Amino acid sequence: MKAIVNVYLKEGVLDPQGKAVHHALDSLGFNGVKDVRVGKQIVLELEANDKETAKTEVQKMCETLLANTVIEDYNVEIVS
Amino acid sequence: MKAIVNVYLKEGVLDPQGKAVHHALDSLGFNGVKDVRVGKQIVLELEANDKETAKTEVQKMCETLLANTVIEDYNVEIVS
Repeated sequence: MKAIVNVYLKEGVLDPQGKAVHHALDSLGFNGVKDVRVGKQIVLELEANDKETAKTEVQKMCETLLANTVIEDYNVEIVS
Repeated sequence: MKAIVNVYLKEGVLDPQGKAVHHALDSLGFNGVKDVRVGKQIVLELEANDKETAKTEVQKMCETLLANTVIEDYNVEIVS
Protein backbone atom coordinates (compact mmCIF):
# COMPACT_ATOMS: atom_id res chain seq x y z
CA MET A 1 0.00 0.00 0.00
CA LYS A 2 1.29 3.43 -0.95
CA ALA A 3 0.83 6.60 1.10
CA ILE A 4 1.59 10.16 0.03
CA VAL A 5 2.24 12.69 2.79
CA ASN A 6 2.43 16.39 2.02
CA VAL A 7 4.07 18.51 4.70
CA TYR A 8 3.83 22.28 4.33
CA LEU A 9 4.39 25.35 6.47
CA LYS A 10 1.33 26.77 8.20
CA GLU A 11 -0.24 29.99 6.91
CA GLY A 12 1.65 32.95 8.31
CA VAL A 13 4.89 31.09 8.90
CA LEU A 14 7.70 32.72 6.92
CA ASP A 15 9.04 30.53 4.10
CA PRO A 16 12.58 31.66 3.20
CA GLN A 17 13.04 28.82 0.69
CA GLY A 18 9.85 29.86 -1.09
CA LYS A 19 10.99 33.49 -1.09
CA ALA A 20 14.34 32.48 -2.61
CA VAL A 21 12.62 30.46 -5.34
CA HIS A 22 10.25 33.37 -6.04
CA HIS A 23 13.18 35.74 -6.36
CA ALA A 24 15.08 33.34 -8.63
CA LEU A 25 12.01 32.92 -10.89
CA ASP A 26 11.71 36.71 -11.12
CA SER A 27 15.39 36.99 -12.10
CA LEU A 28 14.83 34.39 -14.83
CA GLY A 29 12.00 36.46 -16.31
CA PHE A 30 9.01 34.58 -14.88
CA ASN A 31 7.16 37.66 -13.68
CA GLY A 32 3.64 36.28 -13.37
CA VAL A 33 4.24 34.65 -10.01
CA LYS A 34 2.52 36.09 -6.95
CA ASP A 35 3.68 33.67 -4.26
CA VAL A 36 5.75 30.53 -3.81
CA ARG A 37 5.65 28.06 -0.92
CA VAL A 38 7.95 25.06 -0.71
CA GLY A 39 6.98 21.93 1.20
CA LYS A 40 7.92 18.26 1.36
CA GLN A 41 6.28 15.28 -0.24
CA ILE A 42 7.03 11.95 1.40
CA VAL A 43 6.01 8.75 -0.38
CA LEU A 44 5.78 5.67 1.84
CA GLU A 45 5.48 2.05 0.72
CA LEU A 46 3.64 0.20 3.48
CA GLU A 47 3.05 -3.43 4.36
CA ALA A 48 -0.47 -2.80 5.70
CA ASN A 49 -3.32 -4.11 3.53
CA ASP A 50 -6.11 -2.08 5.06
CA LYS A 51 -6.59 1.58 4.06
CA GLU A 52 -7.89 2.71 7.45
CA THR A 53 -5.06 1.02 9.38
CA ALA A 54 -2.50 2.46 6.97
CA LYS A 55 -3.89 5.98 7.31
CA THR A 56 -3.91 5.85 11.12
CA GLU A 57 -0.33 4.53 11.15
CA VAL A 58 0.91 7.22 8.77
CA GLN A 59 -0.83 9.95 10.80
CA LYS A 60 1.06 8.69 13.87
CA MET A 61 4.31 8.87 11.86
CA CYS A 62 3.52 12.47 10.93
CA GLU A 63 2.83 13.47 14.51
CA THR A 64 6.01 11.87 15.84
CA LEU A 65 8.55 12.38 13.06
CA LEU A 66 7.54 13.58 9.61
CA ALA A 67 6.02 16.96 10.48
CA ASN A 68 6.91 19.63 13.01
CA THR A 69 3.32 20.35 14.04
CA VAL A 70 4.26 23.66 15.69
CA ILE A 71 4.95 25.25 12.32
CA GLU A 72 3.80 22.65 9.78
CA ASP A 73 0.55 21.10 8.61
CA TYR A 74 0.26 17.83 6.75
CA ASN A 75 -2.18 15.73 4.83
CA VAL A 76 -2.16 11.99 4.22
CA GLU A 77 -3.47 10.28 1.12
CA ILE A 78 -3.57 6.52 0.67
CA VAL A 79 -3.34 5.87 -3.06
CA SER A 80 -3.34 2.08 -3.48
CA MET B 1 -4.48 30.56 -10.35
CA LYS B 2 -2.73 27.98 -8.18
CA ALA B 3 -0.24 25.38 -9.40
CA ILE B 4 1.14 22.44 -7.47
CA VAL B 5 4.48 21.03 -8.60
CA ASN B 6 5.78 17.76 -7.23
CA VAL B 7 9.48 17.13 -7.75
CA TYR B 8 10.82 13.68 -6.94
CA LEU B 9 13.95 11.65 -7.59
CA LYS B 10 13.85 9.34 -10.59
CA GLU B 11 13.52 5.59 -10.08
CA GLY B 12 16.94 4.12 -9.35
CA VAL B 13 18.45 7.34 -7.99
CA LEU B 14 19.59 6.82 -4.42
CA ASP B 15 17.58 8.82 -1.87
CA PRO B 16 19.66 9.29 1.31
CA GLN B 17 17.03 11.51 2.93
CA GLY B 18 14.40 8.82 2.35
CA LYS B 19 16.75 6.17 3.76
CA ALA B 20 17.33 8.30 6.87
CA VAL B 21 13.58 8.78 7.41
CA HIS B 22 13.02 5.04 6.89
CA HIS B 23 15.67 4.24 9.50
CA ALA B 24 14.24 6.78 11.96
CA LEU B 25 10.73 5.35 11.53
CA ASP B 26 12.11 1.85 12.21
CA SER B 27 13.84 3.10 15.37
CA LEU B 28 10.55 4.60 16.55
CA GLY B 29 8.80 1.26 16.19
CA PHE B 30 7.07 1.78 12.84
CA ASN B 31 8.13 -1.53 11.34
CA GLY B 32 5.56 -1.86 8.57
CA VAL B 33 7.36 0.47 6.17
CA LYS B 34 8.98 -1.01 3.06
CA ASP B 35 10.33 2.11 1.39
CA VAL B 36 10.45 5.89 1.82
CA ARG B 37 11.15 8.51 -0.85
CA VAL B 38 11.31 12.23 -0.04
CA GLY B 39 10.53 14.86 -2.65
CA LYS B 40 9.54 18.50 -2.84
CA GLN B 41 6.14 20.06 -3.27
CA ILE B 42 6.15 23.61 -4.60
CA VAL B 43 2.92 25.61 -4.55
CA LEU B 44 2.82 28.59 -6.90
CA GLU B 45 0.28 31.40 -6.94
CA LEU B 46 0.10 32.70 -10.51
CA GLU B 47 -1.35 35.75 -12.21
CA ALA B 48 -2.34 33.83 -15.35
CA ASN B 49 -6.07 33.27 -15.85
CA ASP B 50 -5.85 30.51 -18.40
CA LYS B 51 -5.11 26.93 -17.32
CA GLU B 52 -3.18 25.97 -20.45
CA THR B 53 -0.98 29.09 -20.36
CA ALA B 54 -0.33 28.57 -16.65
CA LYS B 55 0.64 24.92 -17.16
CA THR B 56 3.06 25.72 -20.01
CA GLU B 57 4.64 28.51 -17.96
CA VAL B 58 5.08 26.29 -14.90
CA GLN B 59 6.58 23.51 -17.01
CA LYS B 60 9.15 26.01 -18.28
CA MET B 61 9.92 26.98 -14.65
CA CYS B 62 10.45 23.30 -13.81
CA GLU B 63 12.83 22.76 -16.72
CA THR B 64 14.90 25.85 -15.92
CA LEU B 65 14.87 26.06 -12.14
CA LEU B 66 12.56 23.93 -10.04
CA ALA B 67 13.73 20.46 -11.03
CA ASN B 68 17.12 19.00 -11.82
CA THR B 69 15.95 16.92 -14.77
CA VAL B 70 19.09 14.78 -14.78
CA ILE B 71 18.04 13.08 -11.55
CA GLU B 72 14.51 14.34 -10.89
CA ASP B 73 11.07 14.00 -12.44
CA TYR B 74 8.20 16.39 -11.86
CA ASN B 75 4.51 16.75 -12.41
CA VAL B 76 2.43 19.91 -12.64
CA GLU B 77 -1.17 20.24 -11.52
CA ILE B 78 -3.23 23.39 -11.96
CA VAL B 79 -5.80 23.38 -9.19
CA SER B 80 -7.80 26.59 -9.59
